Amino acid sequence: MVHTAGRKVPVVDLGDGTALLTDRYELTMLQAALRGGTAGRRAVFEVFARSLPAGRRYGVVAGTGRLLDAIEAFRFDRAELDFLTANRIVDEPTAQWLEKYRFSGNVWGYSEGECFFPDSPILVVEGTFAEAVLLETVALSILNHDCAIASAASRMTQAAHGRPIIEMGSRRTHERAAVASARAAYIAGFATTSNLEAGRLYGVPTAGTAAHSFTLLHDSERHGFQAQLASLGEDTTLLVDTYDVERAVRTAVELAGPSLGAVRIDSGDLGVMARRVREQLDSLGARDTRIVVTGDLDEFGIAALAAAPVDGYGVGTSLVTGSGAPTASLVYKLVARSDAPDPEAPMRPVAKRSVGKPSRGGRKAAVRRVDGHGTAYAETVTTGEPAPGPRDRVLQVPLVLNGDIVGREPLGTAREHHARALAELPPTALQLSKGDPAVPTEFVDGGPRR
Amino acid sequence: MVHTAGRKVPVVDLGDGTALLTDRYELTMLQAALRGGTAGRRAVFEVFARSLPAGRRYGVVAGTGRLLDAIEAFRFDRAELDFLTANRIVDEPTAQWLEKYRFSGNVWGYSEGECFFPDSPILVVEGTFAEAVLLETVALSILNHDCAIASAASRMTQAAHGRPIIEMGSRRTHERAAVASARAAYIAGFATTSNLEAGRLYGVPTAGTAAHSFTLLHDSERHGFQAQLASLGEDTTLLVDTYDVERAVRTAVELAGPSLGAVRIDSGDLGVMARRVREQLDSLGARDTRIVVTGDLDEFGIAALAAAPVDGYGVGTSLVTGSGAPTASLVYKLVARSDAPDPEAPMRPVAKRSVGKPSRGGRKAAVRRVDGHGTAYAETVTTGEPAPGPRDRVLQVPLVLNGDIVGREPLGTAREHHARALAELPPTALQLSKGDPAVPTEFVDGGPRR
Repeated sequence: MVHTAGRKVPVVDLGDGTALLTDRYELTMLQAALRGGTAGRRAVFEVFARSLPAGRRYGVVAGTGRLLDAIEAFRFDRAELDFLTANRIVDEPTAQWLEKYRFSGNVWGYSEGECFFPDSPILVVEGTFAEAVLLETVALSILNHDCAIASAASRMTQAAHGRPIIEMGSRRTHERAAVASARAAYIAGFATTSNLEAGRLYGVPTAGTAAHSFTLLHDSERHGFQAQLASLGEDTTLLVDTYDVERAVRTAVELAGPSLGAVRIDSGDLGVMARRVREQLDSLGARDTRIVVTGDLDEFGIAALAAAPVDGYGVGTSLVTGSGAPTASLVYKLVARSDAPDPEAPMRPVAKRSVGKPSRGGRKAAVRRVDGHGTAYAETVTTGEPAPGPRDRVLQVPLVLNGDIVGREPLGTAREHHARALAELPPTALQLSKGDPAVPTEFVDGGPRR
Repeated sequence: MVHTAGRKVPVVDLGDGTALLTDRYELTMLQAALRGGTAGRRAVFEVFARSLPAGRRYGVVAGTGRLLDAIEAFRFDRAELDFLTANRIVDEPTAQWLEKYRFSGNVWGYSEGECFFPDSPILVVEGTFAEAVLLETVALSILNHDCAIASAASRMTQAAHGRPIIEMGSRRTHERAAVASARAAYIAGFATTSNLEAGRLYGVPTAGTAAHSFTLLHDSERHGFQAQLASLGEDTTLLVDTYDVERAVRTAVELAGPSLGAVRIDSGDLGVMARRVREQLDSLGARDTRIVVTGDLDEFGIAALAAAPVDGYGVGTSLVTGSGAPTASLVYKLVARSDAPDPEAPMRPVAKRSVGKPSRGGRKAAVRRVDGHGTAYAETVTTGEPAPGPRDRVLQVPLVLNGDIVGREPLGTAREHHARALAELPPTALQLSKGDPAVPTEFVDGGPRR
């Protein structure tokens, strides 16, 4: 407790648990289902997007690894239970049930890094209604955020045509969303991140340059450059637009010699500036010194610099805000349930009929149809057993089986998976202009399915 | 460690520390400044926005309380230091310096809940360059996120004209950003949140209804309503659009009687549906049963329902994405420094001259000018001593003094402060249409200032 102006205010303990990252109605629905005898009915929930953000041609699955961590950490501790009962959010029997809660069902999903389209069933959660309904909010939070970021990042990576991109948007989003954003961007092909916690937690390679404040701290730009070079070596990146770019570049090469690593330009017309600076660097003999550009870049800004002598990009705001689509519009819908808690009871497809937002009942599988050239041409979603052709890929993989996490994989695997999945899409997928999904989703009704 | 498919993958420990929620360049600048002898120079950084999101008339300061928690938790533990040195992000002397790090300077800022305008100096951080530069990313992350959410929320609260709004956007944003969003929305006048962790951590009142999955779980809608009423009482909110709204409302009143708390409509034309449902409820004698509407509402959607018989709104996506402005564009700029580490050395204003992004040197104070009717008419930003008139308000308050947190306050205080600050703005501030800032910012040059 901290004493402030006569009032006691508790110091916040964030904690590591994920169980209260949950909407209140999940717990009250649980309570009503426990009381009513339906809590133990078997249930299948699916995560999908009814559409992609306007004009986008594909989405990217990201957050799967974080979701598995969240499911594992989804336990109610004493403080959380006390909060729930003291505030009469749940009754005592429900709190006792929550105290023993541990997800014991199954989760299947698209591999992290996979591409998705409208109605792709990217996650399937199977369990009792009680245990599966509780995961709704945390699953959607993680997937909606991380998929939005990865989907934007993938377009930027494509626009950069192999030039490396540094993710540097931490300051423009929530401090923990920043860490997840760096992770999602790396899956989608970004080279590095400025975010140190993403380096520590997830092993994303970190990178950085210097801020204007460092130059301003010194008695002159020259002093600032000298200090940076002395400490960080000639391979460092010097920021050259604090005062006058031409003078800064001259000073930089004078101090560092031709082995200067890179210069960063953060303002002005980046294409024009990059050409001028390239000429100047070359004329000074610094032919290997790279040029990094930053400053309100998005996928379109990156594409516009394709012909400019740029060696790398730094992207911030547009990445962490999903470049106009900060959430992936994924929903978590009950698609099947049994009439009884008996594990052998048959499953029944269910769907709401709300105006404009109808859902499609039945547990679904998905197959990416791939032609003889190795190019995807359809996303088949079926309530029956998937029937893949020789080149087709069945898209759902097991992530949790009987409560055990089985789908963890290194982040690099997701990154490689994304590169492969993207290479398989038709060329239209890589257009930045607005258009239809690159691959059409087709439904095949296979009748009810266990 | 978890063993997966032959590979060991570490289970992530999120931890509570905030020190690595930081861009790499802050630590490398620190290292260079330590080596170069400039790290101990006194420095003043300011946080401000060069502009508001297009057409917005005011911004709302939020996140201050979270920032104070983050500053307090900003210590480098052994695992973090090991990460930094093992990856050669910093050298050993810098790591030793970081090990002892504790912010010992001063922070001043606008009160949480205060309104702000372009160039309002909403936060001032004073300390050595070394200690103040490290807070850049975490300060901006927290303020950019929370201010963006509170700024959008405040417009929604205004549009709702006193009708309560439930914040229910957790599923559409990063799971921790969701908690901060609920907090920010509450400051800006939302009544409640669905987010349980925001209830536990910050005391935000929680609320909830039921999902379509609860209805679908049951053999009929009637069974679902019965189960909910039996467990949660007649004051609960029944969701009536899973199948047929008219039938659902009839069933709801039949089961609960006229004391049914509320019904929720989540689809269709909400204005039309609300009128129909109101008539039906009234005809069934349920005159006190409230109508809550949800479904892709933003401030404009809320305003459009002003004449509809709606008793409350639920807002999700548009709130947590800042209703088109998911970040507040706040920057953290060095505006003054000394030439020497000596605490008595005079401060010198500094500013970059980057094309299109020049900054204004000197530590600034701000005064909200208020006329005889109690209406604000100008934001005076000065590098001199503020000279408030009798009704004017000096806007910066002490938050941290010599490293001690002095600015903590209960969340309700920030909420009350926002209501007062908003009431003081001219009526144009409350227009939802695009326009200029409601109050102009005027600079008064007061010469250099300690």
